Amino acid sequence: MRDNRHGGDAFRYGKGITDFSANINPLGAPDEVIRAFREADVSVYPDPYSESLRNAIADMTGADADDIICGSGAASLIFTLTACLKPKKTLIAAPSFSEYGRAAECMGSEIIYYNEREGASGMLSDDTDLLFICVPNNPTGTLKERNELEEIIASAARLGIFVVVDECFNDFLDEPERYSVSDMIGEYRNLAILRSFTKMYAIPGLRLGYMLCSDRAVLSGMYSSRQPWEISAPAEAAGIAACGAREHVKKTREYIKAEREFLKSEFKRLGIEHYEPTANFMFFKHRAGLREELLKYGILIRSCANYRDLDERSYRTAVRLHEENMMLIKALEEIDG
Amino acid sequence: MRDNRHGGDAFRYGKGITDFSANINPLGAPDEVIRAFREADVSVYPDPYSESLRNAIADMTGADADDIICGSGAASLIFTLTACLKPKKTLIAAPSFSEYGRAAECMGSEIIYYNEREGASGMLSDDTDLLFICVPNNPTGTLKERNELEEIIASAARLGIFVVVDECFNDFLDEPERYSVSDMIGEYRNLAILRSFTKMYAIPGLRLGYMLCSDRAVLSGMYSSRQPWEISAPAEAAGIAACGAREHVKKTREYIKAEREFLKSEFKRLGIEHYEPTANFMFFKHRAGLREELLKYGILIRSCANYRDLDERSYRTAVRLHEENMMLIKALEEIDG
Repeated sequence: MRDNRHGGDAFRYGKGITDFSANINPLGAPDEVIRAFREADVSVYPDPYSESLRNAIADMTGADADDIICGSGAASLIFTLTACLKPKKTLIAAPSFSEYGRAAECMGSEIIYYNEREGASGMLSDDTDLLFICVPNNPTGTLKERNELEEIIASAARLGIFVVVDECFNDFLDEPERYSVSDMIGEYRNLAILRSFTKMYAIPGLRLGYMLCSDRAVLSGMYSSRQPWEISAPAEAAGIAACGAREHVKKTREYIKAEREFLKSEFKRLGIEHYEPTANFMFFKHRAGLREELLKYGILIRSCANYRDLDERSYRTAVRLHEENMMLIKALEEIDG
Repeated sequence: MRDNRHGGDAFRYGKGITDFSANINPLGAPDEVIRAFREADVSVYPDPYSESLRNAIADMTGADADDIICGSGAASLIFTLTACLKPKKTLIAAPSFSEYGRAAECMGSEIIYYNEREGASGMLSDDTDLLFICVPNNPTGTLKERNELEEIIASAARLGIFVVVDECFNDFLDEPERYSVSDMIGEYRNLAILRSFTKMYAIPGLRLGYMLCSDRAVLSGMYSSRQPWEISAPAEAAGIAACGAREHVKKTREYIKAEREFLKSEFKRLGIEHYEPTANFMFFKHRAGLREELLKYGILIRSCANYRDLDERSYRTAVRLHEENMMLIKALEEIDG
């Protein structure tokens, strides 16, 4: 068995396990999304430029369809972007999503890590090519104010640094617009926004994400850096259906908010050190080995020991269904009791 | 509308068109393959190492599961392999599948083209890093004898050249084993074989292919050069089902053989210059503009004008269902009449 460096590997543990390690919408996929993927015509090659899907995303987001590129997951777009930009020096938050570093490393880039809480502003230099920022940050949930982000993006523009703001968990915030800088892509050509269908629409198995960027040369370079048929027909069909599922998003956001508050207050009651959760996951500290202890209760959480600057006392749990969240609390209570 | 550099773009022409531009099994996908993709669980992340699928491919091919890496189409594996090997100098047949050149170019490689009919043997040098050979060659259908290929692979091994033999259309040959070198991967660690699920199982929309190679460092480097979740759950499920569909392959091979003979004799009768077809497509010469003329008959063929060393008089047609092949012949007869 090979290593899995991420959560979401519940398939290794069989059906009896409840997966708190991947941050997937516990309400599941909208019916129309599942229907759409099943009805997809797989007998023909997919459209290399995902025109119908980009149009649907444009309608949903208000972005120009020509400022959108789709990928088989946001993770794939990270690799395609670095293959296109070939950065010599990349600035990455720590702790944060590990694929930024893997993709930059694969292109032979030097990597400088900055403290995620302190931010990147003090670290920008004109020999930096690429900067990754994740908002809300995975795994800590940290938010950044728009004006703070804009200052960084503007400084980066002056220094010739391309900035990727990963907003893959933005959908789950209480105030998504307040913490998104996607409306700034018109003003800053050095800015790209990553978005995911995986989490909100509960379709990690389909592989679908997108990127917003107004620098057409970058988008065109990305198309040149990958195979022509990146997006599968089931993923494209599901994505188009997902763009219409606004009610599901609203319902999810309300549900997650209530459950996030529940988990937070219970963690407080149990005296477990945790960060303020903002999206559909919560970062906390506990003793080493907790992941293995919880497995005995049929619960899989994410150990964050392999995140840069975190240790074996660091964990992340998804916000799941109420009865599942209660199960987690009960198990923690027993373990600590 | 953006350019499409390949065939298989029938989606641009609507439902009334018969697509001879993509070389897809005209008998369609086996029922169990379609059923499998539709029943796939997309609510969880796919296994990054596609263990179940690799085991199924191992059972089908006799290869060791650890010598197999899956990709979202053979085209994706071409990009992942070049991202991993980072060749400085790449040797590519002309004319042949254009993605070899695109992938090498994307990694900044110098590209040397050799005449596909003459072969690569006279062109090998110790500053060459990577060599692509396509058997049967797309779009010409040219075959290479095993002993001829083995000489090249052995010379390449001595010179430190990594050789990719693309066998994506091998399934459609009358004697697949006779023209495959997949059994040589144990002996030659500098050899990789590309295989596709797209064509034989008629699932271009699902994106699935695989590569055989006994150099574990190369396979591990490829995993490091891409996102962790490359294979979608529907593709993996369909691939596992396809590995069991031996009867479908046998039936297809017989059907294609008969129709290939039919097309060949009709082209001969019409006096149309063509290459000996060996798989499920035929390369031929005709006047410039034929593709557009055939569109009026509801027929889409592949113009090969954008292949290196070919001109606007070069075309490729798929071998399709008998009534469709008759339709093509009738249209050619009328156009020439």
